[in-house]
Order: sequence, then structure tokens, then C-alpha cells
Amino acid sequence: MDEFELIRRYFARMPSAADVVVGIGDDGAVLRPDPGRDLVTVVDTLVERVHFAADIDAGDLGFRAVAVNLSDIAAMGARPRWMTLALTLREARSAWLERFAAGLEAAARPHDLLLVGGDTTQGELVVVSVQITGDVAQGTALTRSGAKPGDRIFVTGTLGDAAAGLELLSRGQRQVDLVHRFLRPSARVAYGQALVGTASAAIDISDGLYTDLDKLLSASGVGGEIDCDKLPVSAALQSRFDADACLEFALSGGDDYELCFTAGADAPPSAGDLAVTEIGICREKPGLDCRRGGKPYACVDRGYRHFG
Amino acid sequence: MDEFELIRRYFARMPSAADVVVGIGDDGAVLRPDPGRDLVTVVDTLVERVHFAADIDAGDLGFRAVAVNLSDIAAMGARPRWMTLALTLREARSAWLERFAAGLEAAARPHDLLLVGGDTTQGELVVVSVQITGDVAQGTALTRSGAKPGDRIFVTGTLGDAAAGLELLSRGQRQVDLVHRFLRPSARVAYGQALVGTASAAIDISDGLYTDLDKLLSASGVGGEIDCDKLPVSAALQSRFDADACLEFALSGGDDYELCFTAGADAPPSAGDLAVTEIGICREKPGLDCRRGGKPYACVDRGYRHFG
Repeated sequence: MDEFELIRRYFARMPSAADVVVGIGDDGAVLRPDPGRDLVTVVDTLVERVHFAADIDAGDLGFRAVAVNLSDIAAMGARPRWMTLALTLREARSAWLERFAAGLEAAARPHDLLLVGGDTTQGELVVVSVQITGDVAQGTALTRSGAKPGDRIFVTGTLGDAAAGLELLSRGQRQVDLVHRFLRPSARVAYGQALVGTASAAIDISDGLYTDLDKLLSASGVGGEIDCDKLPVSAALQSRFDADACLEFALSGGDDYELCFTAGADAPPSAGDLAVTEIGICREKPGLDCRRGGKPYACVDRGYRHFG
Repeated sequence: MDEFELIRRYFARMPSAADVVVGIGDDGAVLRPDPGRDLVTVVDTLVERVHFAADIDAGDLGFRAVAVNLSDIAAMGARPRWMTLALTLREARSAWLERFAAGLEAAARPHDLLLVGGDTTQGELVVVSVQITGDVAQGTALTRSGAKPGDRIFVTGTLGDAAAGLELLSRGQRQVDLVHRFLRPSARVAYGQALVGTASAAIDISDGLYTDLDKLLSASGVGGEIDCDKLPVSAALQSRFDADACLEFALSGGDDYELCFTAGADAPPSAGDLAVTEIGICREKPGLDCRRGGKPYACVDRGYRHFG
């Protein structure tokens, strides 16, 4: 029983109501307290020795805890508004807390995201759980479930950098750009909002492109095909790894926090400096296939799963 | 540095905005997405070996994780609406999850509270963080800060039962009523909503009456005096402990999840079967004094503090 099965089996069966527009199973929940504006709420937890090493810089941890949640908000096309923090710590050390709070602020401030509450507890493990509520015009939140056969598949930015950065860190090596992509991910918040009205479905890439796109396609009841030769890969990644390794990082590496989305005939909005790359197409037949050099390419699904 | 100082020093300094009506430092935050209705958001975490023993029944844990948050919602006078769950587990065991989800539902269903999202992670410690959003008519949320000199001080229900239940459990003894008060606390949700318009300030009793009332008085910029002879103590508590022990449980015992509130001349609303007891009065002079048998009584503040 992996985490997705666990959620489906024990928690997704709970009652719902008319004011819950989207419940359990998407990047976030969509709630409708009043007509006109929907709220989007997301929660993501980072656990010591699972999501980060015990010696992580507290500033990076604070930044990351916010960024991974902002990425879910971005995937829903929402504007981030308010954040709560549940923080479990072994001990309260001033220098650590100072850096952690600064990292939290550094991630939140560019988006006018405000910390409005939280709970601080003592425990034998560091656990950081951030919850963000955002808003969006009624009925416009992006979900995973709107893709149709024929829709084109896009990704933002470059893929595989964060996973490569993590691998370099674990080898005791550093390549500044790649490591930074892992430690301080940029959630595509502005572009997520720009996609409202154009994208038919969206998801953020946290567990790896293959795994996350597969979730989007399944939720939409369609299949798809991607061309591996089109996957956007950074010069920094190519400078450190050969083409095969780059492809595996791009397909299976987690922690990129780029957006993957589908769109019909309309061209997706321009994104300033941010690259937006068409990588494939949706089709009726279920499943996700990859092609490389014109031939089928077997991607081993190595996306991260808790309890997997 | 205890948890209150930690929050004040590192997190309460972050920027705020006009749509954050009440920020960090009350039982919950009050947000105003649109005129007419305010949202109240609370978050509370239970950590293994701090808030509960490793062998706690999973149903009790699920129930309790919801109830402690409902109690914060009650203290704000809000109606609970939507809940998210961040759950860290060592392993995914079906029997455990089945009971946990049933406990969660048992606490949520009577209040039409819906689970709308969450995050499930693996880790070496069980950590349960529940976040609830509720709503309330604009500008009517109860806070800790509205008490005025001359206001009377009230509590709901009986005090000290949960702490006594915990002590009995730790001795390997059971007294059904007391232990149940600890394991399955009843948040005073309906009465919290009934207090809107009457109570000048409110707080829920999670860390102990003395500690929590002291927080309310400080937040209101007033002091107060309570008559220990008036503290409501259950027959079950009196049957197991002498008068001195009962008083210490009632003053300092945590986990009651009753409401403590202040009100001016208006009588508080009736509460059906729930007792509502006047226990003291607010005054200008800062500090909280206790009297017993007409004489000053020194209460040792033994309220629970993380990192204390």
C-alpha cells in the first residue's frame, strides 16, 4: 500500500458537500465559501531524514517548506494568500530559528504570502508542515482532470536539475546551479495564474515528470505520448552528466517544481524569461508512452512514493 | 525560550495585511477574503511521545487530533467547515489506519466538518497535524483581547478531569469518565458560536485554566481574580482525589478543552446540559490572583509549555 492507495482507501471516502468543489486527490482542494471567489488550500510536509538531511541549512529548509506548497498553489492557478506553519523541533535554538524564519520569509515575500498562524511543538524529529490558502475566480481553478485527447502537453523551465543537484550533494560534490535548484526551488506561481483559461489540466512536478504526468492523464481519463528528445534540459545538467543520465533525471527526477500542463488549440501564454516547451500530446488510449529518436523508450517509473 | 516566546520572537514579526483581521497569537487567525464573512483558521499538532504514547489507540488519536482543533475554532466563535490532515507515519498498517480514519470521522461528523485534503509522509515518529478552517459573520469572531475591567469570568463544563484521567492512565488505573475526558475531549463548538455577541473575550482551556486565563487577561490588557471555591469539579474527580488535588487539577491540568470566557452585564446564553459557571471577575490591575476560603491562594503555574 503506497501513499496514493492509502489516501484513496482511508481518507477519500469521507463525506463531501456542495461547497467543496474539488476534494481529496488533486494538488489542492477548491472550496467555495461564497459565490464569486473560490479558495484553494494545500498542505505539504517535510520530514527529517526523509525529505531532508538532519544537517540541512535551516534557511534552505524554511524556504523549501514554503516553495513546495506554493508549487501546489501554482498548479491550481491560484493566488497565494495566507499560510500556517506546524513546526516540530527537538530544541529551540535561536540561530537555527532565525535562519529558518528568514528562509520562510524569503520564499513567501515575493508572493505577498502572509504567515497567519501555526503551532510549535517539541519532538524527537524535525517535521515542517506548511498549509497555504489561495484564491481564484469562481470555477476557474486548474485541476488535473480536464485534459482531452488531442491536447498538447507542455512543461515550464528545465527538468532534472533538482534531482541531479541532490545526487551531487550526496556525493559531496557541488554544481552551484543544480544544487540551488534542489535547495531553493522556484514555484511557478505567476505562470500558474496566467494559465487560467488556457490550460485544460495542470500538475506540478514534485515526484518526477513521468509519475506526475501519468497522474494528470489518469485523472483526466486519457493517455498520452511524450517525445524525450524535446524534454528541456539545462546546460548545467548536460555539463555534468551524459545524455542517458540527463534523460533519466528529466523523466524520473523529483523536486523540480516546474508545471506540467495540457492545452488545446490556443497557444499557452508567454512566460517572460521562463521557457515553456511542448513535449507531447494527449490521446484516447490510456497510459503514458515515451519515444526517443523516433522509437519507443521504456521509462522506469522511479517517482518517489512514501510507503512504496 | 519557551514556545510562546519562540513564536513572538521569530514568527509574529512577519508582515501582515488588511485582510488579516487577527494574525498570530490568538486561538486562530481571522481572514477576510470578501466582505460579509470572515474565515477562521487554526492548526494543532500531536507528536508521539510528547502528546501521546506510542501505544495510543489509533481511533483515540484521530478523534483527539480533530477535537483539539475544533476547540480552537470554538474559542473563536466560528463554525467549522473544512479540514486538512498532515500525517507522518512509520509504516502504513491497514488496521491502524482504519481505526485512525474512523476516529477522525467520529470527531468531525457531528459538526459537518469535511476532510478536503492532506499530505501523508513516512518518518520515524508519528506526527498528526490537523488544520481547520471555519467561518463567522464579518467582525464577530471571538478573540482573547476584548475583556474589560468588571467583566465576569466564566468556564464551561468541569475542570481537571482530563489531567486526572491522564494521571490515572499513567498509574495503570482507569476511571472511565475521567479517562474518556482525556482520550475523547468534547470541543464546545455549538456553545462557542452561541457566545458570539455576548462574550467579550474567549479562549479554550488546553494548557490549564490558570495559564490560559492568564493569556486571555494579558491579551486584553487587564487582570483578574478567581474564586477557587467556585471552580466546577466533577463528581468523578472528587471520588478519586482529595480537595487539594482536585483544585490543582482544576487550576493547572491541561487538556480539558472547555471554554473560558468573559462577559459584561449580559447573562451568557444557556447551554442546555452543559454547565456554565461564573468563577471570577476582571479588574484593571494586571495579573491573575486566586482566592480560596476567602484567602489568597498561590497557584503554581504548571501549564504545559514546549521547550519550557
